Amino acid sequence: MSSTSDIDKLIELMAKLPGLGPRSARRAVLHMIRKRALLLAPLAESMRIVAETARECLNCGNVGTTDVCDICTSEKRANGEICVVEDVADLWAMERSGVFKGRYHVLGGTLSALDSVGPEDLRIPRLRDRVETEHITEIILALNATVDGQTTAHYIADQLEGRVRLTSLAQGVPIGGELDYLDDGTISAAMRARKNI
Amino acid sequence: MSSTSDIDKLIELMAKLPGLGPRSARRAVLHMIRKRALLLAPLAESMRIVAETARECLNCGNVGTTDVCDICTSEKRANGEICVVEDVADLWAMERSGVFKGRYHVLGGTLSALDSVGPEDLRIPRLRDRVETEHITEIILALNATVDGQTTAHYIADQLEGRVRLTSLAQGVPIGGELDYLDDGTISAAMRARKNI
Repeated sequence: MSSTSDIDKLIELMAKLPGLGPRSARRAVLHMIRKRALLLAPLAESMRIVAETARECLNCGNVGTTDVCDICTSEKRANGEICVVEDVADLWAMERSGVFKGRYHVLGGTLSALDSVGPEDLRIPRLRDRVETEHITEIILALNATVDGQTTAHYIADQLEGRVRLTSLAQGVPIGGELDYLDDGTISAAMRARKNI
Repeated sequence: MSSTSDIDKLIELMAKLPGLGPRSARRAVLHMIRKRALLLAPLAESMRIVAETARECLNCGNVGTTDVCDICTSEKRANGEICVVEDVADLWAMERSGVFKGRYHVLGGTLSALDSVGPEDLRIPRLRDRVETEHITEIILALNATVDGQTTAHYIADQLEGRVRLTSLAQGVPIGGELDYLDDGTISAAMRARKNI
C-alpha cells in the first residue's frame, strides 16, 4: 500500500463517515474500485454536485439545493402549521411518514447547559419571527423524547405561549411494540393517554 | 425531499456501499453536507482521482495506480516467495502485519462448484506462469480457513507439486484468544500442532 497513496487517502476520508471505521472503509473502497463505472465514478460526480449546491434553507434550516427549500416555497404547505424538529434527519423521517402537510422548522440541536447551547445558538429567535410573519396557527413540537429534547420543547412553549396553538407528538406504545420490551416511562405515558375504543 | 434530487441520488448511491443501508447512508450524507469543505469536497475529489487511476496489477492482481503494482516492481520484494491470497483485502491485511517480505498473488476469489468458478476464472494459470518466470522457490498459500479456501489451496498445491516449496499459514489459537470462545476445529488444530516451550 506504500505509494498507492490516492487509495490510502480515500480510505482515510471514508473512515471519517459516521458508521464506518478503518476496516469497513477499506471494504467499501475495495467494493467501489471493483464497481468503478457503476459506483465510484457516479458517487464522485454526485458528491461534487452536492458539495457545490447543498445549502441550508434560510427560512427553516432544512437542507436543499436552493436558498429557500422546496417546502418553504410550496404554497400547498402554507397551512398555518409548523412542525419543529431538532435535526434535518428528523424532518426527513416526518416527510417519509407523509402525515404532515405543513412546513418545518429545524432547530439544529437542543438546548444544553452542559454544552453551553443557548436559544440564540439554535433557530429559536427565527421561529418567533416566523410565527408573526407566516400567519402560523399551530406549532407542533416534534422534538425527541429525551431530557434535552423535552427541555427545549418546554422553553419554546414558554416563549410562544398565548400567541399560537402549541401541540406535541403523542406518546405511547409504538406500532408493533411489545409491552415486555418497553420502558416504564412509555407504558405510564400510554396508560395516562389511554383512549376509548 | 421532493426536488432535492441531487441529495436523494447521493443517498441512494451511498446506500449501495457494503455496510451502509438506507438509514446509515442518510446519516452519512447529512454528516458530509455539514462538513462540506472538510469532508464532502475532498471525498468527491479523492473518488474522482481513484476512479480514474485505480487498476488491477497485470502481474499479481493487487489494486494500485499503475499497470504493475509497487510490490511487483520493487526489486527488494523479489526474494523468491509468493504469498497467494484470495482477495486484495487479504493482501492489505498481510501488508499491515509487515511480516512478509516477498510478492503476492491475488486469486480474486475461490474455486466454487456451486457458483461455477473454475481455475481459469481465478488467476491460477497466471500463478503457474509466474513460478516459471520469476524464479520462485516458495509459494505460501494464505487462503482463508473456509471450505472453499482450503479446496482452492489443495487444488493449487496439486498443480504446483514438485515444482516449488509449498507452505500454508499455521493454524492455532489467535493472539488474545480465549479457549472458551474458540471452535472445536481450531482447538484440535492447535493441539495437533503443539510445540515445545
